[in-house]
Amino acid sequence: MRAAVVTGFDKPVELQEVPIPEPDAHQVLVRIEASGLCHTDIHAAHGDWPVKPGLPFIPGHEGVGIIEKIGSDVTGRAVGERVAIPWLGYACGTCAYCVSGRETLCESQQNTGYALNGGHAEYAVAHAAYVVPVPEGISPAEAAPLTCAGVTTYKAVKVSGLRPSERAAIFGIGGLGHLAQQYAQIFGGETIAVDVTEEKLRLARELGAAHTINAATADPVAEIKALGGADVAIVLAASPRVLEQAHASLRRGGRLVLVSLPKDNAMSLPVFQTVLGGITVIGSIVGTRTDLAEVFQLHAQGRTKVIYETRKLEEINRSFHDVLGGTVPARLVFEM
Amino acid sequence: MRAAVVTGFDKPVELQEVPIPEPDAHQVLVRIEASGLCHTDIHAAHGDWPVKPGLPFIPGHEGVGIIEKIGSDVTGRAVGERVAIPWLGYACGTCAYCVSGRETLCESQQNTGYALNGGHAEYAVAHAAYVVPVPEGISPAEAAPLTCAGVTTYKAVKVSGLRPSERAAIFGIGGLGHLAQQYAQIFGGETIAVDVTEEKLRLARELGAAHTINAATADPVAEIKALGGADVAIVLAASPRVLEQAHASLRRGGRLVLVSLPKDNAMSLPVFQTVLGGITVIGSIVGTRTDLAEVFQLHAQGRTKVIYETRKLEEINRSFHDVLGGTVPARLVFEM
Amino acid sequence: MRAAVVTGFDKPVELQEVPIPEPDAHQVLVRIEASGLCHTDIHAAHGDWPVKPGLPFIPGHEGVGIIEKIGSDVTGRAVGERVAIPWLGYACGTCAYCVSGRETLCESQQNTGYALNGGHAEYAVAHAAYVVPVPEGISPAEAAPLTCAGVTTYKAVKVSGLRPSERAAIFGIGGLGHLAQQYAQIFGGETIAVDVTEEKLRLARELGAAHTINAATADPVAEIKALGGADVAIVLAASPRVLEQAHASLRRGGRLVLVSLPKDNAMSLPVFQTVLGGITVIGSIVGTRTDLAEVFQLHAQGRTKVIYETRKLEEINRSFHDVLGGTVPARLVFEM
Amino acid sequence: MRAAVVTGFDKPVELQEVPIPEPDAHQVLVRIEASGLCHTDIHAAHGDWPVKPGLPFIPGHEGVGIIEKIGSDVTGRAVGERVAIPWLGYACGTCAYCVSGRETLCESQQNTGYALNGGHAEYAVAHAAYVVPVPEGISPAEAAPLTCAGVTTYKAVKVSGLRPSERAAIFGIGGLGHLAQQYAQIFGGETIAVDVTEEKLRLARELGAAHTINAATADPVAEIKALGGADVAIVLAASPRVLEQAHASLRRGGRLVLVSLPKDNAMSLPVFQTVLGGITVIGSIVGTRTDLAEVFQLHAQGRTKVIYETRKLEEINRSFHDVLGGTVPARLVFEM
Repeated sequence: MRAAVVTGFDKPVELQEVPIPEPDAHQVLVRIEASGLCHTDIHAAHGDWPVKPGLPFIPGHEGVGIIEKIGSDVTGRAVGERVAIPWLGYACGTCAYCVSGRETLCESQQNTGYALNGGHAEYAVAHAAYVVPVPEGISPAEAAPLTCAGVTTYKAVKVSGLRPSERAAIFGIGGLGHLAQQYAQIFGGETIAVDVTEEKLRLARELGAAHTINAATADPVAEIKALGGADVAIVLAASPRVLEQAHASLRRGGRLVLVSLPKDNAMSLPVFQTVLGGITVIGSIVGTRTDLAEVFQLHAQGRTKVIYETRKLEEINRSFHDVLGGTVPARLVFEM
Repeated sequence: MRAAVVTGFDKPVELQEVPIPEPDAHQVLVRIEASGLCHTDIHAAHGDWPVKPGLPFIPGHEGVGIIEKIGSDVTGRAVGERVAIPWLGYACGTCAYCVSGRETLCESQQNTGYALNGGHAEYAVAHAAYVVPVPEGISPAEAAPLTCAGVTTYKAVKVSGLRPSERAAIFGIGGLGHLAQQYAQIFGGETIAVDVTEEKLRLARELGAAHTINAATADPVAEIKALGGADVAIVLAASPRVLEQAHASLRRGGRLVLVSLPKDNAMSLPVFQTVLGGITVIGSIVGTRTDLAEVFQLHAQGRTKVIYETRKLEEINRSFHDVLGGTVPARLVFEM
Repeated sequence: MRAAVVTGFDKPVELQEVPIPEPDAHQVLVRIEASGLCHTDIHAAHGDWPVKPGLPFIPGHEGVGIIEKIGSDVTGRAVGERVAIPWLGYACGTCAYCVSGRETLCESQQNTGYALNGGHAEYAVAHAAYVVPVPEGISPAEAAPLTCAGVTTYKAVKVSGLRPSERAAIFGIGGLGHLAQQYAQIFGGETIAVDVTEEKLRLARELGAAHTINAATADPVAEIKALGGADVAIVLAASPRVLEQAHASLRRGGRLVLVSLPKDNAMSLPVFQTVLGGITVIGSIVGTRTDLAEVFQLHAQGRTKVIYETRKLEEINRSFHDVLGGTVPARLVFEM
Repeated sequence: MRAAVVTGFDKPVELQEVPIPEPDAHQVLVRIEASGLCHTDIHAAHGDWPVKPGLPFIPGHEGVGIIEKIGSDVTGRAVGERVAIPWLGYACGTCAYCVSGRETLCESQQNTGYALNGGHAEYAVAHAAYVVPVPEGISPAEAAPLTCAGVTTYKAVKVSGLRPSERAAIFGIGGLGHLAQQYAQIFGGETIAVDVTEEKLRLARELGAAHTINAATADPVAEIKALGGADVAIVLAASPRVLEQAHASLRRGGRLVLVSLPKDNAMSLPVFQTVLGGITVIGSIVGTRTDLAEVFQLHAQGRTKVIYETRKLEEINRSFHDVLGGTVPARLVFEM
């Protein structure tokens, strides 16, 4: 099969012909139809983070396709089903985190496209218990971005406790942000979209934002405060300065949700304002299998719209370049 | 009456003879029996914070005494009752914060010993709706520290969501910390006390700490991690470095509660660890009237022990000095 | 002024000319523009409940109008403002319920149109702190039903914990039910409307119900179970049998919210199914001032539609008759 | 091995010699040391419930013992470990309930001593992922009652939301009730113990009850109301009348937790009081593996005391008789 293989952290990704993997007793073999490109793939391929993937490996954790084989012990999944293979490729299923509904915190988890080979290939094997069925009526290319960008932002909104009559400010309307905004609306919130390009803000308005702010030409803190302040701020732009703006835009009792990872890894948190304002700062990491099933269900009900552009797997290195340059409209999806 | 009056931010507090204040229609006049000294009194007297009190004023927001007069419109309070006059001297009662149980976030609040004259005097007037009855069997000198140190740490534990089988690390076992530890235990938690003096750690053990760590001689992060990490960390020591240690000592899913205000007002928050670890950072500010009533009730049930030392009001300037020098055992309380 | 006065529990309501009341220091005088008719008005007028109103009295707790006078101690309200006067006419503001955000449970509460004269008149006085401003752009006739039917169903959905991807079954699509359905949708839920008339179900579909069930011709339990069961069931039809159907239609972990009061006051709760299914049954009573402010805000955002029919106050006895006969489309509103 | 075998629903349990079972790839073989007798065992043996166990079967879901063999695919468990085999013998691990921390609601669950052979035998096999390690320092005979009576009451207190300064009434101080009371205290509550025998009430006082009420000689509703009403009531006595008393003893905002299953399966729920009082009724069924691990941890910390009496397995039929007659002090535990 054809696969995008990372052979060195300072080398381009290579398109290689490799053997189709064989599922073990608890795994399924999936023929990939579409595989979304996430910024994390680039971090993985470049070895940016402290714990690096073993080389060589196949990146991608938004793979969607059809089950072609199932292991001897697999129950609940069947050949022919369409499934998604998310970042949470495996968790232990027995620790306190797994049993209490927080499997994304499992200390024994293995991540797809990182510790496990991922979806940027014609085939992938995956743990049967951790793939998530894609309902009828969702195309593979739409399902792919939902598998990480979707579930991550859905979870961010969920943990924020956002509810009707509250205002949510979304900082960064890209591949993640345009979905975060829609989920904030589905949870009943009134949304304020903040970005630095008019095109993104136009998209936000089309998707139902009550307010849009161009942070290149206006001060988002002052503008949001003039609206009464945000109850919830979700930050998808990986910059400490934006995190600090998001914090400053909250009204008392507000919640700041951290999702994206800025390079220098430090936010300066103003303690006085946090204490006196009763502010909560929440770190949120992807979502569980059930969260993803809910994301798919909402999409099947016609309640979300996914903005994406398809590419060929051969274009992976150029696609990395385009994502890093910020020149892509929303999510890129490789179709096999 | 005799009162401790701040006449300038760079001057010592003056003991003055001033007229006994007259309660308005909604107020009560309280003959003060005991008044606790909080670090905030010193910040108020020195004008340390951006919004300064108007001069002259009487500090103190842990005043406890007997109602001697009630205004013409007052209901629910009676002459002869013992009450406490806490930091939240007045709130509007009608905004979304007040109506939804978060009166300590009211934007119209007035604070005792800051915007309103406080308890470091023989008499004080207070809004009848915002004083809290002190139950039978609690002495004024014990009630005083509970009125701010108690309710503040009780609330901090409450918002942390601490529950039985979880571990709470308390950083700083002083006037606030020794109460925080006890509340953490009452909520069912196992406590880890962290301080830099053996005497404080001995106190913590007497009060039921499961573990104690001397941060002067051992690395609290490593020690707490060796115990499995903390589910909750509450920081009473006003230092950014301690805040960062407290964050680092959490296990996944942990909650860091910010209570004390470090001088330079900035905590460096590690975004990567916060996101991947599903960490929540919660700002907590004093507590409501009901929180304080609960604090008194727990004390009346014999479930808390208050460590304090009594002084005369004349000793206020020396007491400021001793608190700043860190040479006091726990809380200082002026007896009138 | 003209007022609808109850002079005896077994007599028709009388239209009388009575003096315009005078607000006390904490009250406002409101010139009523519209006043909604709630089933509770009929119970009040008939003395149906154990604690009866004192005679004579003016019913009505959905009064909306313009402030014409304010008492000497009133702050925060102004002559000329449009306000609503809800069921919660007064609460003490200091008990544990009031302070913790549950003022509708205050033991000292006084209720409008019951213990206090209500809105079925040309003028009414009301406690300034308990009226709720009606935002620009909402007509009095729309605001009236929101003042009780709206806030009651909004609160019912709120306490149910309904969230996106969950299914809510609404039993009874009348004056309350058509609003409950809309709030369930605003909280992100998928709705199932259950009623016995096709006209009501047509309305439910127009308002966005995903499924409708005619309980006169189909078994709602079987139909809802076939959809996977309901996560939340809200019962607006005051019949023990419907309560039991609603319970039986829940999936495991489901929540049944009780709002309406059946005459014989007893629901037979199946203990086995409640325990094994992890079912929760929640009693919900009207909503707080803040809940009502949120209801108005959602309506001002264009997110709810109120179905009502206007009448003259002179038609009050015929209107009682029509409500009891079930022949009215949704809410009746008296315009003055 | 020797085992207690149910061969017919109308026959006594038979002590038989049967082959030691062989664990499959995902199971462990446990040499039972102690096995608690739960009322449910009697219901199982008598076929009392709609879905009956297949015959023949070995009852018991409080089995505790040492792992002697592990299946080829088992990870995380080792030969020589002491484990408990609770009611939740198996759950699917992938449904929305399992993934969201509510595995006790899994529709595919299999229950120990019911669908699966249980602990009333010298050996039992169990799914490795669903046994729970027993920490050092807990004897098998103490661990056994914790495995069902403990975790069930712990969970009941957990879902009640009981917190410090609240009052919890425990109806029935037997095998479950004496543990429920202790957990209520660990969660910070003040407890009221209600029973009909002085001996049980004496035990409750020894275990820390603040109040005890003999329901044979006093009206528990009146007594509890005189104390201010209960915030939480937990009912371990399987009688509709006691359920109704428990409901009536609640103060506004109170929560009634249903645990035990009365024979006629119907509680008459007063709708008016439930709605006006903002009462919540919560069905609670056993607990998760993590709940049980927490129960063991609290016991290892010395915070609970288990009252039990040991018997020989040969005495099973007489023990059934004694439990039904209500003549046993607390829990009976078979030692092998």
